[in-house]
Amino acid sequence: MKMWTIQAIKASALPLLGMSVVTTTLAAAPDVPYPKGYRDWHHVKSMVIEEGHPLFASFGGIHHIYANDKAMKGYRSGAFPDGAVIIFDLLEAVRADHAITEGQRKVLGVMHKDAKKYASTGGWGFEGFGGGDPANRVVGDSAASACFACHQPQQAQDYTFSRLRD
Amino acid sequence: MKMWTIQAIKASALPLLGMSVVTTTLAAAPDVPYPKGYRDWHHVKSMVIEEGHPLFASFGGIHHIYANDKAMKGYRSGAFPDGAVIIFDLLEAVRADHAITEGQRKVLGVMHKDAKKYASTGGWGFEGFGGGDPANRVVGDSAASACFACHQPQQAQDYTFSRLRD
Repeated sequence: MKMWTIQAIKASALPLLGMSVVTTTLAAAPDVPYPKGYRDWHHVKSMVIEEGHPLFASFGGIHHIYANDKAMKGYRSGAFPDGAVIIFDLLEAVRADHAITEGQRKVLGVMHKDAKKYASTGGWGFEGFGGGDPANRVVGDSAASACFACHQPQQAQDYTFSRLRD
Repeated sequence: MKMWTIQAIKASALPLLGMSVVTTTLAAAPDVPYPKGYRDWHHVKSMVIEEGHPLFASFGGIHHIYANDKAMKGYRSGAFPDGAVIIFDLLEAVRADHAITEGQRKVLGVMHKDAKKYASTGGWGFEGFGGGDPANRVVGDSAASACFACHQPQQAQDYTFSRLRD
């Protein structure tokens, strides 16, 4: 919440400086919380993205999708309630000896549902934690272009790509 | 427990038929229970085994390791308590468009710790459920040769291969 507080102060101070506040206000969505304990959540599915794939530059490696209890309800009902959190946990895919094993964490992606707080991006807050470091936010105010733009066509599924499997 | 009951009857009936019961008694370990709800357990790690790997014939595909709470204690302490269950969930690895996705379940492997029940195989009961079907037991009485033989060198780690990661 610290960043959000600073952004709120900035937004309210800007008119005093004679600057437009519109863009800043739109960008000042509240921080997406770091998803503490997510490794104990439900493992939804996994995938390996390799060189040559259109998303390789951003998402090359092996990723696992995790969901908290509220997100599990969302997958089942088709409507994700506030507080639903979906994780995209991307690790390096280490290829050796005819096997692919997991390497270092590249980025921990988070979708956090709050219809009111994140209204401008489909009710979802998006964040990426570089290397999985809670202090290294790599999306910040760029969620609309860096994340939501690709998720938007998934509106019929509440902007999610993943599906539950057995 | 149904199979175990049948095996117990067989074992007790054999002396009446003048046959040695020794081998049968050793093989008649209690059935390893199907691990109901394991998809909600802790996801430990994953790996892809490809053609050319020495274990490809048996374990080719993408597998996920899951652990119940007692098994998590075992990973952390080095000693797995009775009731610890570790899952080896093997799915087909479907390669297309520079990505590997998950296909059908090939086998659901289970290690179930009970030092007394499974004393002859390091205190672990081993089972494989073909296609994930609780009724399709593919290991049965062959645990010693089909599973424990490869796990035995891991004695220092209570016969397990996997390790926790962040």
